Amino acid sequence: MKLFSLPTLAASLALLAFPAMAQETPQFATVVDTAYIFNTLLFLIGGFLVMWMAAGFAMLEAGLVRSKNVSMQCLKNISLYSIAGLMFWLVGYNLMYDGVDGGYFGSWFSPKVLETVGLGAEGEAAAALSTGYSAGSDWFFQMVFCATTASIVSGTLAERIKLWPFLIFTVILTGFLYPITGSWEWGTGWLDARGFSDFAGSTLVHSVGGWAALAGAIILGARSGKYSKEGQVVPMPGSSIPLATLGTFVLWLGWFGFNGASQLAMGTIGDVSDISRIFVNTNMAAAAGVVTVIILLQIIYKRVDVTMALNGALAGLVSITAEPLAPTILQSVVIGAVGGAIVVFAVPFLDRMKIDDVVGAIPVHLIAGVWGTIIVPWSNGDASYATQALGIVAIGAFTFIASGLVWAVLKASIGIRVSQEEELLGLDKAEVGVEAYPEFTAAGTRF
Amino acid sequence: MKLFSLPTLAASLALLAFPAMAQETPQFATVVDTAYIFNTLLFLIGGFLVMWMAAGFAMLEAGLVRSKNVSMQCLKNISLYSIAGLMFWLVGYNLMYDGVDGGYFGSWFSPKVLETVGLGAEGEAAAALSTGYSAGSDWFFQMVFCATTASIVSGTLAERIKLWPFLIFTVILTGFLYPITGSWEWGTGWLDARGFSDFAGSTLVHSVGGWAALAGAIILGARSGKYSKEGQVVPMPGSSIPLATLGTFVLWLGWFGFNGASQLAMGTIGDVSDISRIFVNTNMAAAAGVVTVIILLQIIYKRVDVTMALNGALAGLVSITAEPLAPTILQSVVIGAVGGAIVVFAVPFLDRMKIDDVVGAIPVHLIAGVWGTIIVPWSNGDASYATQALGIVAIGAFTFIASGLVWAVLKASIGIRVSQEEELLGLDKAEVGVEAYPEFTAAGTRF
Amino acid sequence: MKLFSLPTLAASLALLAFPAMAQETPQFATVVDTAYIFNTLLFLIGGFLVMWMAAGFAMLEAGLVRSKNVSMQCLKNISLYSIAGLMFWLVGYNLMYDGVDGGYFGSWFSPKVLETVGLGAEGEAAAALSTGYSAGSDWFFQMVFCATTASIVSGTLAERIKLWPFLIFTVILTGFLYPITGSWEWGTGWLDARGFSDFAGSTLVHSVGGWAALAGAIILGARSGKYSKEGQVVPMPGSSIPLATLGTFVLWLGWFGFNGASQLAMGTIGDVSDISRIFVNTNMAAAAGVVTVIILLQIIYKRVDVTMALNGALAGLVSITAEPLAPTILQSVVIGAVGGAIVVFAVPFLDRMKIDDVVGAIPVHLIAGVWGTIIVPWSNGDASYATQALGIVAIGAFTFIASGLVWAVLKASIGIRVSQEEELLGLDKAEVGVEAYPEFTAAGTRF
Repeated sequence: MKLFSLPTLAASLALLAFPAMAQETPQFATVVDTAYIFNTLLFLIGGFLVMWMAAGFAMLEAGLVRSKNVSMQCLKNISLYSIAGLMFWLVGYNLMYDGVDGGYFGSWFSPKVLETVGLGAEGEAAAALSTGYSAGSDWFFQMVFCATTASIVSGTLAERIKLWPFLIFTVILTGFLYPITGSWEWGTGWLDARGFSDFAGSTLVHSVGGWAALAGAIILGARSGKYSKEGQVVPMPGSSIPLATLGTFVLWLGWFGFNGASQLAMGTIGDVSDISRIFVNTNMAAAAGVVTVIILLQIIYKRVDVTMALNGALAGLVSITAEPLAPTILQSVVIGAVGGAIVVFAVPFLDRMKIDDVVGAIPVHLIAGVWGTIIVPWSNGDASYATQALGIVAIGAFTFIASGLVWAVLKASIGIRVSQEEELLGLDKAEVGVEAYPEFTAAGTRF
Repeated sequence: MKLFSLPTLAASLALLAFPAMAQETPQFATVVDTAYIFNTLLFLIGGFLVMWMAAGFAMLEAGLVRSKNVSMQCLKNISLYSIAGLMFWLVGYNLMYDGVDGGYFGSWFSPKVLETVGLGAEGEAAAALSTGYSAGSDWFFQMVFCATTASIVSGTLAERIKLWPFLIFTVILTGFLYPITGSWEWGTGWLDARGFSDFAGSTLVHSVGGWAALAGAIILGARSGKYSKEGQVVPMPGSSIPLATLGTFVLWLGWFGFNGASQLAMGTIGDVSDISRIFVNTNMAAAAGVVTVIILLQIIYKRVDVTMALNGALAGLVSITAEPLAPTILQSVVIGAVGGAIVVFAVPFLDRMKIDDVVGAIPVHLIAGVWGTIIVPWSNGDASYATQALGIVAIGAFTFIASGLVWAVLKASIGIRVSQEEELLGLDKAEVGVEAYPEFTAAGTRF
Repeated sequence: MKLFSLPTLAASLALLAFPAMAQETPQFATVVDTAYIFNTLLFLIGGFLVMWMAAGFAMLEAGLVRSKNVSMQCLKNISLYSIAGLMFWLVGYNLMYDGVDGGYFGSWFSPKVLETVGLGAEGEAAAALSTGYSAGSDWFFQMVFCATTASIVSGTLAERIKLWPFLIFTVILTGFLYPITGSWEWGTGWLDARGFSDFAGSTLVHSVGGWAALAGAIILGARSGKYSKEGQVVPMPGSSIPLATLGTFVLWLGWFGFNGASQLAMGTIGDVSDISRIFVNTNMAAAAGVVTVIILLQIIYKRVDVTMALNGALAGLVSITAEPLAPTILQSVVIGAVGGAIVVFAVPFLDRMKIDDVVGAIPVHLIAGVWGTIIVPWSNGDASYATQALGIVAIGAFTFIASGLVWAVLKASIGIRVSQEEELLGLDKAEVGVEAYPEFTAAGTRF
C-alpha cells in the first residue's frame, strides 16, 4: 500500500494529464481495454457476493437446526466452502471447462487459472484481451458457484450425518459431480449444443445440489423421532429464527452477484443494461415468492410461518435463476410466485413421503429449480420446452444416481450416520466438542 | 455462464486487440459509453448496499425486541421489503417521478422500468445514452430507498401491532405516501422548484418513515405495562444486543451506498471524487455520533448503554444524509455529533411523552432527520434555512396526517392491535406460530 | 437524487450521443480519466469491504466471549471503529504519509483528505489526475486499515478490561502507534527504503495489532480462574458459535477488499488481472488454513473444534496478506496451510505460557502475520529474508514496547482492570448496564 511510490505510473500519467508539457495529444482508452476491466470487475464483484452466500447458508442452517447441532452446522459450512475451493482448483475447473476436449483428468491444478503478474508474459496481454476478462476473476466466480452447490446439500442432511463422510461427499461433488454436469452445458458440451438454456444455474447449480441432497436424505434416513409410528410428523423447530432470517437476506443479496454477474460482461451499454434487468427481475421474483407464501399460508393455515416466508424468498430466487434476463417484470413476478407456492405445497409433501429435509432445501433448490428451468421458453424464444425437459432429466438422473452411489458406498464403508445416542446428545457434543450456546441451554435440551 | 461461447464478441475483440491483423486502428471508448457504464454500475452497487440495509433493520429490530416477538419482527421485515418492491413497481415509481406531468395514476406497472434486452429496440441505445444510465438500475436504486422508508416504521410499532394491518399500511406507504412527498422534491415537483435541498433523504426517506411511525405509535398506544400508573418507565430490554449491533453495522455499511450512490453519476473524475467525499463525510458523521453518545452517557449516567451508542451511529448517519457532499470533515463531525446528542436527550423525552418507540426510530430517523435537513445551508450555499424549514413542515405535515388517517381507518375497521393476552403471550406464538428461540426461553419469559 | 434535473450533463451528453445534431465527432474517454475513476472505485469498494470487517470482528468477539460480557464487546467494537476514524483524521493519516517530511504533528486535521466538490478548485483536477485517484477514497481506504488494527486488540483483552482505558489505548494506537510504524513502510520511510515488503499488512496491520494485544494481555493478566493453581487451563467457552462463524465469514469477505484493493490501481488490464490473482490467492490461503486445521485436529485430538477451524481461516488470510500477488495458487495454499497449523500449535502454547488471549488473536494476527511476512521472498524475488526479518523485529519491538508503556501508564494511573467482583458479575452488568441476552441466561451464568 505504498501510495506515494508509484513513480513510473505517476510520471506517465503526468505526461498524459499535461499533454502540453510533453507535446503529446491525450491518450484515449481503447474499447477492448475498458471492456476487459469492466468484465473482470463484474466477476470480482459478483464473485465476492456469491462467496458471501456461503455465510448465508451457514446462518440459514444454523438457525434452522436445533441448538445441539449448531456448531456442527457451522463447521460443515466453513469446511465445505474451503474444500470446494481446493477441489475446484485441483480438478473441477478443468473438468468443467476443458473436459470435453482435453480429457477429464488431463490438466489438474488448473494451469489456466492465473495469468502472470501484470500480464507480463509474452503475448499474454493480447491473449487476455481476446477472451475479454482476466482468467483469475473468471475462475473465482466459477469456484463460488461450485461451493454454492455443496452448501445446498449441507442443510438437508443436518442433525444426523457424520462430519467426515459429509466432507468426503463434498470432495466428490465439488471436484467431479458438479463439474461433469456443468461441462455438458457451461463447458459447451452436448446439452449446450442441443440448445439447453440455464442462465445462472437453476438446474446446473441448485437442482444439482438438490438432487445430491435428496439422494443423501433417502439413504441417510430421517432424524430419530421425526416421523412417529402413528404417521405423525413431529416438529423439530429451529433454534434461531433471526439467524435464519439473516441467512436469507444474505442469500438474497448474494443472488444479485449470482445472477447479475452471470451476464459475464459489463463492458458495453447493452451488457450493463442487461445486468440492471437481471437485478430487477431477480429482486421481484424473490419478493413475489415471499408475498405468495404469506398470503397462501394465511388462507390455508390462518397463520404465517416465518420459515416458510424465508423459503419463499429463496424459492423465488431459484426460480428466476434459469432466466433472469429475458422476462418482463410481470413474468418474473409470476415465476417467483409459483416458486413460493411450490414451497407451501412441497414442504408438507416431502414430510408425507418421510423424506426429512431439515431446512427445506429440496423444495427450494430442487423443485423450484426444475420449475425455473422448464419455464424458460415462456420468456426466451431461443429455448424449447422439450430441450429444457431433456436437460432437467439428464442432469437430474446423473446427479441423483451418481450421488446415490457415493452415499451408498460411504454408508457401506465408513458409515454416514451417527449413533442414536450421539444423535440424541447432539452432534456438537458428540463430534465437535464445542457447544454452540453453552449458557443458553443449560437447563437441558427440550427436543 | 458459457464462458467460451461468445464467438461474436471474441471475434470482434480479437480484431480490436490485434489491429495489425485487420489493418484497423484501435477503437476508442467514447465518453458517453463509459459514463453510462460507470453510472449504471454506481446504481447497481449502491442498490445492493441499500438492499442490504433491509437485513440491517431486521437484525436491529430482532435484537431490540423481546424474544417472544422476534419471529414476528423477522417476518415483518422480509415481508415489507417484498411489498415495497411490488408496490413501487405497481404504483410508486411512476407516481414519484412522472406524477407532476403525467397524473399520479396514469401509468401503472412502471412501463419505463426496463429497457429491452441488449438495448435492442430501435433508438433505445441513443435514448439510454441521453439519460446517462440504465433505467433498470435507477429503478432498483429508487426502490430500495422506498423499502428503507417502510423499514423505519416497523421497529417503532413492534411488540403489539398485528401482522396484516402493518402490511396493509406498508402497501399504502410504499405505493402512495412515500412517492407523493418524494415527487415534490426528487420528482422535480414544487419543493424542488423552491430550492429545497435533501441530497439523499434525511427528510424524504428518514423523516417520512419517522412521521409514519410516530402517527402509528400514538394511535396504537404503548405496550402493556411500559408506563406504570405511577408514571414509571418500565425497561423492556431487547433480547439480543449482538444482533442489534450487527444490524447497526449493516446499516452503516449500506449507508455508503445510500449516500454515495445518491451522487447519481460516477462517469467523470469530478463525480467519483465527490462520491469519495460522501463516503468520508458519511463515515465521520456516524463516528462522531457514537463518540458523542458514549461521552455524554458517561458524564450524565456514569454508564454507557450500548443500545444508545448504536443509535448514536444511526443518528449521525441520518443527520449527514441531507447533505453528505458539501460539508468539510469538521462540519460532518459536528453534524453527526449533534445527531448523537439528539438520541441521548430525545429517547427519554419520548418516554416522558409516553410515546412507546421500541427501537428508538423516532429520535434517530425523524428528529435527526429534521436536524440534518435544517442544517444543510451551513455547508451548502445554494440552500436556505427558510426553504429547508418549509420542506420539513410540508412533508412532515402531509405524512403525519395521511399516515394518521390510514392508521385510524385500519384501527376502526380491522383493528391494529393484538389482544392483551396475545401481547403477553408474545406475537410469535399468537400470530406467527413459530418461536424465535424455542430452546432458550424454556424456563418462561422474564418480561 | 433528482434524476431528471441534470440539464447541463444531459444536454452535453445528448450532443455527444447524437453527433450529427452537433456536427461533432464522438468524444473519447482518456486513459487518465478512466484510470482515475477505476482506481478511485477500487478504493471505495475495497474500503467498504474493509469497513465491514469491523462488523466481523464484533461478531467474532461477541461469539467467543461469555454471555455476561457480550454487550461490552459490542460497545467496544463500535466505539473503536468510530475512534479510529476520528483519530486517523486528526493525526494518523498525516503522521503516516507525511510524517517523514513534514514533521509528525505538522498538519493535523488532514488537510489533504478531501478535494473540493467536483474538483472545482483551480488546478485541482490536474493535480488529482497526476496521483491517479481521489484523495478522499484513499483516505477512506487507509482509515479502515487503521481501524482493523484496533479491532485486533479488542478480542484478546476481553472479559476483564475496563471500557475507558481500552478506548484511551485505542486513541493512542490509531492516532500514533499504528501510523508511526506505518510511516516506516507505506509512508515510504526507512524500511521501505531498505526493501521491506508487506503488500497489504501482515506486519503493518495484523502483527501490530497482535503486538499491542500481547503487551496488553501480559500487563492486564489472565481472566480470574482461567489458569488454576494446579496449572490446569479452565475452558471458558464462547457464548455463540454461529456469531463467531458469521464474524469469520464477514472477515473473509472483507479480506478481498483488504488485499485486493491494496493493489492500489485498477485502471489497466494488468492491474485488474493482478487483483484477480489476489482474490484467488487470498481465498485459497484461507481455504487451506481451514482444511489444515480440521485435518490436524482430527489426527491429534480426534475431534474438530469449530473455533479452531474459524481461526484457521483467519490465520490463512493473515498469512497471505504480506504477499497475495506474487505466489502461485500452490504457494498460496502452502502459505495458508502453515498459517492454519500455527493456530493448532500456538493456541495451546499461549495457554501454557498463561497468556490469556480470549479469541486467539495473537496466534492468528501476530504469529501468522510474522509467518506471512517472513515467507514473502519465497514468491517475490524482490524481497529478502534478512530485510523481512529486520522489518518484523523493528516494528514488533517498537509496537510491543510502546504499547507496553501505554498499558503500564494506564494501569498505574486510572487502572485498566475491573474488580474481581465486577469480572465475576460480568462487564455487561458492571459497566454497560445492558445485558446482551437478558432472557436466555435467567437461570444464572454457568461459568
